[in-house]
Amino acid sequence: MALNCMKVSRIVSQNAFRWIAVSTQRNQSTVSKKEQLVITEVNKKTGFATLSFNRPSALNSFTLELLQDFSKALDEVENQKYKGMILTSTSSNAFTAGLDIKELINPDPIRLKELRAVYLDCSLKLYNSLFPTAALINGHAIGGGCFLAMACEYRVMLPNFKIGLNETQLGIACPEVAILATKNIISSRDSEMALTLGTIFETDKALDIGLVDEIAKDKADAMAKCESFMLKFKGVPALARGITKQLFRKKIVDLMTENKERDVENFVNYVLDPISQQNLKAFLDGSKKK
Amino acid sequence: MALNCMKVSRIVSQNAFRWIAVSTQRNQSTVSKKEQLVITEVNKKTGFATLSFNRPSALNSFTLELLQDFSKALDEVENQKYKGMILTSTSSNAFTAGLDIKELINPDPIRLKELRAVYLDCSLKLYNSLFPTAALINGHAIGGGCFLAMACEYRVMLPNFKIGLNETQLGIACPEVAILATKNIISSRDSEMALTLGTIFETDKALDIGLVDEIAKDKADAMAKCESFMLKFKGVPALARGITKQLFRKKIVDLMTENKERDVENFVNYVLDPISQQNLKAFLDGSKKK
Amino acid sequence: MALNCMKVSRIVSQNAFRWIAVSTQRNQSTVSKKEQLVITEVNKKTGFATLSFNRPSALNSFTLELLQDFSKALDEVENQKYKGMILTSTSSNAFTAGLDIKELINPDPIRLKELRAVYLDCSLKLYNSLFPTAALINGHAIGGGCFLAMACEYRVMLPNFKIGLNETQLGIACPEVAILATKNIISSRDSEMALTLGTIFETDKALDIGLVDEIAKDKADAMAKCESFMLKFKGVPALARGITKQLFRKKIVDLMTENKERDVENFVNYVLDPISQQNLKAFLDGSKKK
Repeated sequence: MALNCMKVSRIVSQNAFRWIAVSTQRNQSTVSKKEQLVITEVNKKTGFATLSFNRPSALNSFTLELLQDFSKALDEVENQKYKGMILTSTSSNAFTAGLDIKELINPDPIRLKELRAVYLDCSLKLYNSLFPTAALINGHAIGGGCFLAMACEYRVMLPNFKIGLNETQLGIACPEVAILATKNIISSRDSEMALTLGTIFETDKALDIGLVDEIAKDKADAMAKCESFMLKFKGVPALARGITKQLFRKKIVDLMTENKERDVENFVNYVLDPISQQNLKAFLDGSKKK
Repeated sequence: MALNCMKVSRIVSQNAFRWIAVSTQRNQSTVSKKEQLVITEVNKKTGFATLSFNRPSALNSFTLELLQDFSKALDEVENQKYKGMILTSTSSNAFTAGLDIKELINPDPIRLKELRAVYLDCSLKLYNSLFPTAALINGHAIGGGCFLAMACEYRVMLPNFKIGLNETQLGIACPEVAILATKNIISSRDSEMALTLGTIFETDKALDIGLVDEIAKDKADAMAKCESFMLKFKGVPALARGITKQLFRKKIVDLMTENKERDVENFVNYVLDPISQQNLKAFLDGSKKK
Repeated sequence: MALNCMKVSRIVSQNAFRWIAVSTQRNQSTVSKKEQLVITEVNKKTGFATLSFNRPSALNSFTLELLQDFSKALDEVENQKYKGMILTSTSSNAFTAGLDIKELINPDPIRLKELRAVYLDCSLKLYNSLFPTAALINGHAIGGGCFLAMACEYRVMLPNFKIGLNETQLGIACPEVAILATKNIISSRDSEMALTLGTIFETDKALDIGLVDEIAKDKADAMAKCESFMLKFKGVPALARGITKQLFRKKIVDLMTENKERDVENFVNYVLDPISQQNLKAFLDGSKKK
C-alpha cells in the first residue's frame, strides 16, 4: 500500500458522495430568479450546484452587487458541502464579460476599491476551492470571463463562441497570476504566444490548444459533460482531493494572496487617472455606437 | 564552440564508457539471490547495473530491511561508477507496491521513523543520481512504485499492468514533491487531472499521456529498450551529464531535502494515530479477504 | 470590458504601428557592410530591423568586438523604436557558433572577463526586449547560437541544418538559465532528454518537438514567415505587449540577472585553468585537421 505521499496529518473520514439535502436558497421567497444576479440551483440527484451569472442584458458583466452575490454563492457551495459546482450564465451568448465598464466611469473611490477587492476574493475562492468545479461556457468568455473559466477544473464550451485573455489588445499587461493560470492548462509555448498577442480563440481552436476540454452541441449536452467530469470524483475522498488540488495550485494561490493589496491599489489608481477615464468613456461611446 | 553554458568550475576528464570490472556483490557468498531483498546484477558488456526488488511474495512492498538494502545498492552503483542503473523486480506482476502495510500496524515508533527516513533517502538518491537511470516496469506500479519509476529518467513498461499515483483515492493528499515530479514528465493539465482523481493508468494509456516512454512485449525486450536508452549517453561526459540532470531537477530535489524532517514527523504522527491504525487494520483485513 | 488583468499603473497611449523613419546607420559612411560585424537593416514598410551576424569566415562566432556591436545594435532597435527585430546571419550555413574558441586560448584575463560580461548582457537584452523578436535560422545554431534563437519569440529555420544545446557533449553542464529557457519552448520531458544528452536536432526534428516554429524553403521565405509572425502584433499596444512578455519570462530574467557576476567569475576561472587551456588547444587542433 502506498502511504509515501501522505501529507495531511489527519484525514477526516468522509462519505464521499452521499446524497445531500438541498438548502433553501437565501431570499428565494422574496427575490424572484429573474432579479437574482447569481442564481444557485442544486441537482438533488448529483449534489452539484449550478451557479449562473444573471445579468444577460449587460453580457453578465460584473457590478459590485453581482460580485458580492457571487462571493456568497461560492461560500454557500462550500458550507452546504455540495459535491461540486458548475459555473455558467443565463445568457444565450455571453458567459461573462468581466467587470462592467460603467462601474469604472466617474466611480466612487470607495466603491471602486470594494469592487476590485471582491472580484479578487471571488477569483481566489474559485481557484482554490476544495470542491470540484467545471465551467459551462455557454457564450463569449473574454478577459475576466476567460480567467474565471480557467480557474475551474474543467471547461466545456458551446460552438462558435470566443474565449481568451485579450488584455494586451486593450493596452493592459497580462499579470503574473493570469500567466501562471494559463500555463497550468496549456503549454508554455502556446501561453506566451496567446498572452503577448492577446489572442481570442474560437471554440474549436480553444479545444485544439487545450484551453477547453470538450465542445458540447448545446447547453443540456454541456451540462451532461460537466456532470460527467465531476462524477469521476464520486469515489474519491473529498478532502484529500481538495488538498491535492490546493497543493497543485499553491504557487498561483500564494501569488494571488500576496498581490491582493497592491493589485487593488494599482487598479484604483489606474481607473481614477484622468487619462484612463477619458479612454474608458471613449471606449463606452464606441461600444454604444456599434 | 559553445562555452556559454559552462557552470562546472572544473570538469574532470573522464573516459565516459570504458568497460568496468564487476564488483563482488556484498555478502554474495553467504546470502543466496533468493534471500536478497534487492538483487544487483552488472552487465559486463554495458557496464549497467540492474537492481531488482525481490520480495515477490509481498508484491515487492518495502520493509525497513528492503529499503536499507536498496539504499546501499544505490550507493554501490554510485561508488562502483557503474555506467547506469535499471530498476525492476523479480516478480511477474508487481514492480513494487510501495511501503508494506504490515510495517505500519502496531509499529515500533523508532523503527517507523527509520522506515520513513530511509524511504525518503532512497527517493532522493534515485531522483538526484549522477548516473543514468531507467525503470523496467514489469508489473503494477501504484503509489510509491509509480513514484520510484517517475524518479528514473526513462520508463519502459510491460503491457496490461497499472501505474499511477492513487493517493487521493486512499484519502491521502498527493504531496508537492510528487506533483512536481509528475509535471516533470507529463503536461500540467494531465497532471492536475490525474493527481486530483488519483488515476491508475493501464500501460497503453500511460504511454499516451507520456507517463511511460515505451511499451515492451516482454521483460527481455524491455531490458533491451532500457539499455538502448542508456547507451545514448555513451559519448556524453558523465559528470557534465549528471550535473545537468541535477540542475534540471534542482527545484524538486531542494523540496525533497527541505521537507524531509517534517515529512518523517507527519508520517509517524499519522500512522500512530488510533484512527489511522483502525483504518489500516480494516484495509489489511479487506485485502486478505480478497 | 476586462480590466481585471491590469498591472501597469499607466499605459502610454501609442500608435502601435506607424511607419518610422529609418535611422542613419552608425558609421555607415566609413565602414562598408562587408566589414561590419553586425549589420542592421531596416524595412521601411514594416518597421522591422534585421540584425545579421557577419563573420561568415568564422561561422559567425563571437569575438569581443562582435558582441559589443551586437549589444549596441540591440540598444538601437530599442531606442529607435523599431517595430520588431529579426536575428539572422550573412552566412550560407551558420546562424552562429557562439563564442569564438580563439578568444579563449591564452586570453588576456581582462578581455576574457569583458567577453563573457558582454555576452551575458546581449542574452539578457534579447531575452527581455520590449520589442518583438524572431530568429531566422539560416544555418547551424549550436550551443550559444541555439540559445540566442531560443531567446527570440519565434523561430523559422531552413532545412537540413542543426540546432541544439550540446553542452553536456562538450563536458559542460547546461546551466539553469538555458534549462528554463528550453522549458519555456518545449515540453519538460523533451527538455530533460535533450539537455542531458546534449542532443543536436535536424531542422525537421526540431520542428516536431517545437524547438522551431516553422520551416522555410529559403531565406526569402523565412524572412516572409518571420515578418508574418511579427505583423500579428500590428494592432497590439506595444508597451502592454512588451511588459506581458517580460512578466512571462520574469523568472528566467531574474535568474540571468542574479547569476551574472558569478557566471563571469566561474567562466574566467574555468577558461584560465591550465587543463581547460590544454583541452581547448586540443579541440582547436582537432578542428583544424578536419
